[in-house]
Amino acid sequence: MSHNTFGHLFRVTTWGESHGPALGCVVDGCPPGIRFTLAEIQAWLDKRKPGQSRFVTQRREDDLVRVLSGVMLDDDGETMIATGTPISMMIENTDQRSKDYSEIAKRYRPGHADYTYDLKYGIRDYRGGGRSSARETAARVAAGGIARKVVPGLTVRAALVQIGKHRINRTNWDWSVVDTNPFFAPDPEIVPVWEEYLDGIRKAGSSVGAVVEVVAEGVPAGIGAPIYGKLDQDIAANLMSINAVKGVEIGNGFGAAEITGEENADEMRIGPDGRPIFLSNHAGGILGGIATGQPVIARFAIKPTSSILTERRSIDSDGNEVDVRTKGRHDPCVGIRAVPIGEAMVACAIADHYLRDRGQTGRLA
Amino acid sequence: MSHNTFGHLFRVTTWGESHGPALGCVVDGCPPGIRFTLAEIQAWLDKRKPGQSRFVTQRREDDLVRVLSGVMLDDDGETMIATGTPISMMIENTDQRSKDYSEIAKRYRPGHADYTYDLKYGIRDYRGGGRSSARETAARVAAGGIARKVVPGLTVRAALVQIGKHRINRTNWDWSVVDTNPFFAPDPEIVPVWEEYLDGIRKAGSSVGAVVEVVAEGVPAGIGAPIYGKLDQDIAANLMSINAVKGVEIGNGFGAAEITGEENADEMRIGPDGRPIFLSNHAGGILGGIATGQPVIARFAIKPTSSILTERRSIDSDGNEVDVRTKGRHDPCVGIRAVPIGEAMVACAIADHYLRDRGQTGRLA
Amino acid sequence: MSHNTFGHLFRVTTWGESHGPALGCVVDGCPPGIRFTLAEIQAWLDKRKPGQSRFVTQRREDDLVRVLSGVMLDDDGETMIATGTPISMMIENTDQRSKDYSEIAKRYRPGHADYTYDLKYGIRDYRGGGRSSARETAARVAAGGIARKVVPGLTVRAALVQIGKHRINRTNWDWSVVDTNPFFAPDPEIVPVWEEYLDGIRKAGSSVGAVVEVVAEGVPAGIGAPIYGKLDQDIAANLMSINAVKGVEIGNGFGAAEITGEENADEMRIGPDGRPIFLSNHAGGILGGIATGQPVIARFAIKPTSSILTERRSIDSDGNEVDVRTKGRHDPCVGIRAVPIGEAMVACAIADHYLRDRGQTGRLA
Amino acid sequence: MSHNTFGHLFRVTTWGESHGPALGCVVDGCPPGIRFTLAEIQAWLDKRKPGQSRFVTQRREDDLVRVLSGVMLDDDGETMIATGTPISMMIENTDQRSKDYSEIAKRYRPGHADYTYDLKYGIRDYRGGGRSSARETAARVAAGGIARKVVPGLTVRAALVQIGKHRINRTNWDWSVVDTNPFFAPDPEIVPVWEEYLDGIRKAGSSVGAVVEVVAEGVPAGIGAPIYGKLDQDIAANLMSINAVKGVEIGNGFGAAEITGEENADEMRIGPDGRPIFLSNHAGGILGGIATGQPVIARFAIKPTSSILTERRSIDSDGNEVDVRTKGRHDPCVGIRAVPIGEAMVACAIADHYLRDRGQTGRLA
Repeated sequence: MSHNTFGHLFRVTTWGESHGPALGCVVDGCPPGIRFTLAEIQAWLDKRKPGQSRFVTQRREDDLVRVLSGVMLDDDGETMIATGTPISMMIENTDQRSKDYSEIAKRYRPGHADYTYDLKYGIRDYRGGGRSSARETAARVAAGGIARKVVPGLTVRAALVQIGKHRINRTNWDWSVVDTNPFFAPDPEIVPVWEEYLDGIRKAGSSVGAVVEVVAEGVPAGIGAPIYGKLDQDIAANLMSINAVKGVEIGNGFGAAEITGEENADEMRIGPDGRPIFLSNHAGGILGGIATGQPVIARFAIKPTSSILTERRSIDSDGNEVDVRTKGRHDPCVGIRAVPIGEAMVACAIADHYLRDRGQTGRLA
Repeated sequence: MSHNTFGHLFRVTTWGESHGPALGCVVDGCPPGIRFTLAEIQAWLDKRKPGQSRFVTQRREDDLVRVLSGVMLDDDGETMIATGTPISMMIENTDQRSKDYSEIAKRYRPGHADYTYDLKYGIRDYRGGGRSSARETAARVAAGGIARKVVPGLTVRAALVQIGKHRINRTNWDWSVVDTNPFFAPDPEIVPVWEEYLDGIRKAGSSVGAVVEVVAEGVPAGIGAPIYGKLDQDIAANLMSINAVKGVEIGNGFGAAEITGEENADEMRIGPDGRPIFLSNHAGGILGGIATGQPVIARFAIKPTSSILTERRSIDSDGNEVDVRTKGRHDPCVGIRAVPIGEAMVACAIADHYLRDRGQTGRLA
Repeated sequence: MSHNTFGHLFRVTTWGESHGPALGCVVDGCPPGIRFTLAEIQAWLDKRKPGQSRFVTQRREDDLVRVLSGVMLDDDGETMIATGTPISMMIENTDQRSKDYSEIAKRYRPGHADYTYDLKYGIRDYRGGGRSSARETAARVAAGGIARKVVPGLTVRAALVQIGKHRINRTNWDWSVVDTNPFFAPDPEIVPVWEEYLDGIRKAGSSVGAVVEVVAEGVPAGIGAPIYGKLDQDIAANLMSINAVKGVEIGNGFGAAEITGEENADEMRIGPDGRPIFLSNHAGGILGGIATGQPVIARFAIKPTSSILTERRSIDSDGNEVDVRTKGRHDPCVGIRAVPIGEAMVACAIADHYLRDRGQTGRLA
Repeated sequence: MSHNTFGHLFRVTTWGESHGPALGCVVDGCPPGIRFTLAEIQAWLDKRKPGQSRFVTQRREDDLVRVLSGVMLDDDGETMIATGTPISMMIENTDQRSKDYSEIAKRYRPGHADYTYDLKYGIRDYRGGGRSSARETAARVAAGGIARKVVPGLTVRAALVQIGKHRINRTNWDWSVVDTNPFFAPDPEIVPVWEEYLDGIRKAGSSVGAVVEVVAEGVPAGIGAPIYGKLDQDIAANLMSINAVKGVEIGNGFGAAEITGEENADEMRIGPDGRPIFLSNHAGGILGGIATGQPVIARFAIKPTSSILTERRSIDSDGNEVDVRTKGRHDPCVGIRAVPIGEAMVACAIADHYLRDRGQTGRLA
């Protein structure tokens, strides 16, 4: 409720500011016996890490994660075994350029949370955006690394499907190319298009929005809950909590508004193995808030980075009208780095529902 | 957490099945001193009530609400004054046609929650959809009637902006016409188009999806919270919890993915009265999870009613392949009746955040 | 959080005032498939019912409970089967003597919540104590009736062990006599002592405190949780939430302060069946917040009824000094009727922890 | 819900094991603008610190706390100003003697949580008690240091009032002596009695229980809530969550069971300043769950340290019968070091209720 925790049985609390000594999270509710290595968690952080291509911010952070509690080392000296107690993870901030923040301290950058933080709190750590910086999401990604291990057989992957008006061709979808291009694009043919387009955006000091699609496979049928504990509701909340996200959809999403009941129905049959199968997945793997066993599909829209080089009209905290031009290292399309964050948030929602169903020790796993 | 409650300080718990003796809600957290009449609450229920035009289900329910606790009558014998204790409201079910449900009891209607309820619970009140029936939303609308009273100066209105592929012309937007047509359309010119289109759908025993837009004015600047208690996140969760909703967006929503930072920036100036003003509202009234004071704008997509006359392939609970054709009284476009529900869910989210900010007795009101 | 709900996975929300049309509860989280009859629930309410002896209030309420949702009737037409959806139960208020409450409306009765309700809310349903009346506990007892069914093999019983300074002789403890005397005394020899003592109290228009002991057998070993989700912590909270309770203890309780580590240790051995056994139960069945499998033992102290015939000095809401003498039908020892309430609250805590462990559908049962 | 967090609006999450690299807490909900120094927080930790007299464990930990987030430094370079974002505090573990834990790893120490942790989790960090070690309470004390700052004018103090059967003489109560003796005794005459008694216990390798009394002054009248959000209920839960606590009472507590309504009534009058006053405080400052404005008084009983030199019968995790004798550095009376912990837990409960009443930004302060 105090707004820095999400989840019910798989609970994640994050803390830390962009320019403080460190940031981190406490994962409470990881079932005992879950095994993982530091390298596995680090790999997800590396995917989110800035500075990996010219299309993302050039801020350089190693983002090395430490695990401070909640695990015992296995005899191999590497595998961590969760004990069921809270897992505290910490990432030290290393690239805090000592610069003069006096300008940004008072000026409200349009599209940022500067104005509303001041409205609400009357005080704000303005250095690098403080708590509202997307740096907070590093802790989510670390938590997501644990969440992925909680549900046996779960795979959560995401890809960028739209930058500006340029959408992928879904018939080209190939998961194997996602990690081979700087955009997490699943369509190899869109890569040169986005490259050229984003180079223009970047050079103009501009920015653009994007859409990410998350696909979770191996979601146990029957997890979720109807009414106000819907799996899709929690996925929507988790994704909407990511900085800059303005829209979320499940399955057909807004497309469902355009079609008929006949077109939208996911028909069922008995499969060759005698088990129920669906003949389509317009629902995105969720009916009445409960997982059907099909892949869970969610998409979310990210607005363009608010930090741009072009001057925008604004005000400062003294009530003066000012013009704001955001210099510094920024992402021309924050949607790119949102890909692993979206995966993490969906993984956390699924792990949470899995434990609600299985109980806190997850003994039915 | 047990999934039939939403909200933190303005908490709504609903209960009841489609064909049980009654349904209702408990509103816990209404500040003391809030005043309302039964007629005011009833008016919202009447707006959601079935049987009001040929475009909605012909099931007839009076949906008369009773207030069982949490209020004292003022001297006028009509105005109820909240005492700060839980307000229990009940609506008796009156039109429960006694018919043979044995067919539907075992057959999974595609697009409905039949299959997943059985997966999860192994038992299901199949009469009229039981708990998964949209009848549950009557209780939400009653709760929303209270929520609207909690925040001084708040107005929450909604309108239908799309049926199938037919969208309104936003330049025609006129709130005054919304309650004068059977679709809650804000564009008088779309009404005949939708009439003709929906008549065709209805006669074919088909159904179609829709999009609703909710606009909340008078939202106090500064309510909401960053990170995981975002106002937009809670609005998204509340809307996604409505039956058949598949997508939610705030402000520009998915449109934000298509534009640049320059286009998306809401610039600021000091207004004639010396107070900050925004020159646009792409953000939909929320920055960093906190209300800016501008109107909060949310849209949600509703899938086509799953109950259609055309046979669809399915299975039954014994594992047989069956063909299902849903007879009975159904909405050709459930999106229409979702309009007051969307309003109620947004009002509840705003009331909740208002109280989080002001405290449980709302004494700062 | 809004204070009329308790429990996490087995959640109980109560509503209603002493003199409103009805009171009730919503039990959310009862696993599907749990079976019970209305008569079984009613039996617990009858145990708490006023007017059953001269030692309890003469207010007459039938306290007939209705189940409005969350169940399907089995073929026998009597057994209710929980469907996993919220169980709404309602008890209509029938003995609301229409009298003049103007005196009590403004005068703060010492020991009652009149003054603090006004402090907090500025408005208060003064009729019969309104929401602060112990009548609210009828709803708890109904919920407890469900809770008892949730945990297979669970038995929760309570007895009165002290009235004023008169304590039972524990060596006489005999569960079979508890329901055969008006005090729920487990020691037949104390009954005449208490009868004589309480008759004196009653005739003097006075009141006296008491201690209740609750014993839960069949509590599954391993439920509960360490740190802030301790089973004993939740039992303490549940019992402390009962009107007039001023103290709670587990196992040896305050007696543990007086003894040494050697005396307090519950030694273990392997029993004849090869399973671990404890040789004593000083811990009251809980170690580190987790159930050991031994009986869970809790005691709570109830203060004397605040309503007494002797005048006490007080003030009224206008700030005048007044003398208050509480006429009307009151319990000389509210501790007696607290016995079934204590049972219910402990049963609810155990059911909640059981589901946290087993998951929301309780499928491991 | 995942059991390592307490509080609703002032939320504390703790993490860490006795012998891991560090332990700490995240305080979420501290209102913006609250000011404190590191030295102020450290002072409370020093009070709890081991090794300060021969009557507590000789384990030596400096328990130096670091603040990693949620504050900005004031111009004096020392005063921290809360920004409203989560305050992460960390204490590194420095005295982790590298010893052979293989014996304790499998043997269940009677009275400890070893057996129940294994029952529940099947895995356990046995080094120094792991998560069940009272070392976790260092983080609570740090959080309590913040809580004390949240409520203007609040003072929370505690004292030891009983060791074994030796109780203080309440007429000698003198707060000024509490910090001048190794027992936090408020009665100078009991000090030599306890010294002699505890020396005997200590030399015998035995242990004994104790009772702590916490007194909170300056609790704002009207905070708290009736029914299930009672201030006394939350204080009871918070205190019962402390390791080894077996009983909690408020005001007269179990003593209330022994007296009459006349004796227990706290009469009221209008004070010389025209404000209501109480003529006694049997209620311990809380009526109907809501603070009256009088001092809030709570007591809790701590069982004797389970670690004793005398052999006790037990079993090991392989099902063998063993005899356990706990060597090492232990507290002969853990009740002593529970004094600052009890203060911290009561301060946290009051801060939480204060914010529930005032709202998350505490702007009414």
